[in-house]
Amino acid sequence: APATKPARLGLCAACHGETGAAQIPGAPNLAGQKRDYLREALRQYKDGRRKIPVMQAAIGPVSEADLDELATWYSEQTPVKATP
Amino acid sequence: APATKPARLGLCAACHGETGAAQIPGAPNLAGQKRDYLREALRQYKDGRRKIPVMQAAIGPVSEADLDELATWYSEQTPVKATP
Repeated sequence: APATKPARLGLCAACHGETGAAQIPGAPNLAGQKRDYLREALRQYKDGRRKIPVMQAAIGPVSEADLDELATWYSEQTPVKATP
Repeated sequence: APATKPARLGLCAACHGETGAAQIPGAPNLAGQKRDYLREALRQYKDGRRKIPVMQAAIGPVSEADLDELATWYSEQTPVKATP
């Protein structure tokens, strides 16, 4: 699994933080989330099963390999107790 | 916020666990997730922006109040470092 930061992390960090703590209202925490779930969610944004414009736009140009790397990265971050 | 378990928790616990640790492959952890994100995700399953049959079926008959309670409950659980 990648110890170094994924190439495309900056794209995600704006809303999800570099370590998966949500930075804006409405964005989810990603730290410690199940890798397969994260990867499947990305697939659903890409194929339209999740009709959420901001995410469809964000990952449109991102390669499958980069998406794999990002899902793995966030799944390996330590979750912090979210302020609800 | 509800200290007691939500009335409909059993419905969710099968896949998400009572305290938000995923129980089946593919299901996300919910513990410590942002409350508003969880509530919005449920809205998206209900209104079809997320075309995911298992979730659309699960929450179809659940009231808005119960969904509020469930989102709050899971957001208050302590996240555990997921096994990726």
